[in-house]
Amino acid sequence: MPTERRVNRPIILGIVGDSAAGKTTLAAGITEILGPDRVINFRTDDYHKFTRAERAKNGMSPLDPAANYIDVAGQHLRLLRDGQPVLKPVYDHRRGTLEAPQYVEPREYIIVEGMLGYTTRDLRNCFDVKVFLEPAGELRKKWKVKRDCSERGYTPEQALAMIGKLHEDSLEYVVPQRTFGDIIVRFYPPDGQSDESGAHLAVRHTLRPTLPHPDLTPVLDAGAKSGIHLELQRDIDGKPVDVLEIPGEIDDRRAKAVEDLLWNLIPEAAHLRDNVGRFTDDQDRQAMSHPLALSQLLIAYHMVKAALGHHAI
Amino acid sequence: MPTERRVNRPIILGIVGDSAAGKTTLAAGITEILGPDRVINFRTDDYHKFTRAERAKNGMSPLDPAANYIDVAGQHLRLLRDGQPVLKPVYDHRRGTLEAPQYVEPREYIIVEGMLGYTTRDLRNCFDVKVFLEPAGELRKKWKVKRDCSERGYTPEQALAMIGKLHEDSLEYVVPQRTFGDIIVRFYPPDGQSDESGAHLAVRHTLRPTLPHPDLTPVLDAGAKSGIHLELQRDIDGKPVDVLEIPGEIDDRRAKAVEDLLWNLIPEAAHLRDNVGRFTDDQDRQAMSHPLALSQLLIAYHMVKAALGHHAI
Repeated sequence: MPTERRVNRPIILGIVGDSAAGKTTLAAGITEILGPDRVINFRTDDYHKFTRAERAKNGMSPLDPAANYIDVAGQHLRLLRDGQPVLKPVYDHRRGTLEAPQYVEPREYIIVEGMLGYTTRDLRNCFDVKVFLEPAGELRKKWKVKRDCSERGYTPEQALAMIGKLHEDSLEYVVPQRTFGDIIVRFYPPDGQSDESGAHLAVRHTLRPTLPHPDLTPVLDAGAKSGIHLELQRDIDGKPVDVLEIPGEIDDRRAKAVEDLLWNLIPEAAHLRDNVGRFTDDQDRQAMSHPLALSQLLIAYHMVKAALGHHAI
Repeated sequence: MPTERRVNRPIILGIVGDSAAGKTTLAAGITEILGPDRVINFRTDDYHKFTRAERAKNGMSPLDPAANYIDVAGQHLRLLRDGQPVLKPVYDHRRGTLEAPQYVEPREYIIVEGMLGYTTRDLRNCFDVKVFLEPAGELRKKWKVKRDCSERGYTPEQALAMIGKLHEDSLEYVVPQRTFGDIIVRFYPPDGQSDESGAHLAVRHTLRPTLPHPDLTPVLDAGAKSGIHLELQRDIDGKPVDVLEIPGEIDDRRAKAVEDLLWNLIPEAAHLRDNVGRFTDDQDRQAMSHPLALSQLLIAYHMVKAALGHHAI
């Protein structure tokens, strides 16, 4: 993406949320938009202190910051942000083991996925854009079973048991980080379609005034069920936020209008828009979800703006 | 060691030399003097990029800086010097494999052993004291066979073959670092005792004016074969140096006089002098070598002086 780049350091995005909250799917689309060869995908899970076998013995939760080299994760992000390479540790999710580290050189964009990215002020200060993912609970369970069975060698029963076992830890360590998100993204099945887990999910973005969000007024469509809505609300913590709703049934015309508006705001990236919004559905077919595509685009918009120096305040 | 410490950062010693040059033995004694709980032992071999099996395929020499994460080694030393922890890579010498990294926190003293410590300016700038070890060639072969067979699972033939195979690489990559040593230490068998490889080795210190060396005048003993000698010479590169000779036959009285002088110069460390100069001889007995003890003490002296701020120029 030939941007007129003004900021001469990597722009860093955080995507934080529970296990199977959809971090990797969201990150993949944003990586495609920004250009895979310009992006490092960085996972804070790699900073686990213990193997799965060691945790089984010492009883530590992988969600406990004390079970992770949180300080080194922050140090490595600062070094990358500063243009230096790092020797990044590697956690093998399939085997649950700690492997030899990998040499990573900085690129224009760094997308950080993890469960604990906003735990410390030191880490939070690394990010240009902070996203928190909180899909509807039942939806996350479906995603968890699908992912853990296909990629990590678990049975469905084991995957569900893990959600239950980690529930308390999630409430203690992961959920409190929601308050640090600039954008809180919640995918959920539309009313009366509780089985939906793919292309027709709706999405709600809770937008905090900590970022200059794009003006979506021209494409808002408050009256129509298939249009997007923006509403001033009080967040669950009582603070004022904008809530952007993108329905699962959004039609192609309306989705395209929103995409046009956003692409026009970042013309530097317009030639890459074909890559947006693809994901693998239940049948492992490439599928297209407007709410996912628009979410990825809204976040990529902030990354490009940050690279152009428009976020500096 | 309760020093009146003035310098509020780790003091870093480099011990650089070929494989089996005696780096670990020298470092062990200095670690004892400074206090093991105040010292980190740091090996640049841990920054190997490739496993032994990978090197067998790609033909890279472990001595080639390009086969090592030299930049990250320097970065880690700077971070430690700056008071930050690092996640240090780990090379397993016995198995020839790269392992999960280890969390290392800074301590008062860092002793860096390795074959490539002075390769880049970036690395060289990390050190307060730079030692280069160059034992007599035949002596190093004996040490190599002994160490590789007892600790690394090689046969004597394999160990000797490695020296031969790495000879060219040593000349290209290791030997040129000699020029950066503040102190060049050469252990060698005394005349007519070519079989000596332990307690009765002589040692020669080539002292460059890059450090303020202690005034040894009161204990010099130029006339006696069993005394120590200091002589102004031209180094092999033509530059002026002091050459300190400590004979293998140095008697207990003379050795004690030198030790007294040095300990008196660093009274902060005097209570630890019992730990100096022990090593394991060919029969794995604890043995005592005056030349080794004095070498360790001379180097520890510089470390303590640096911690006291006396080396800052």
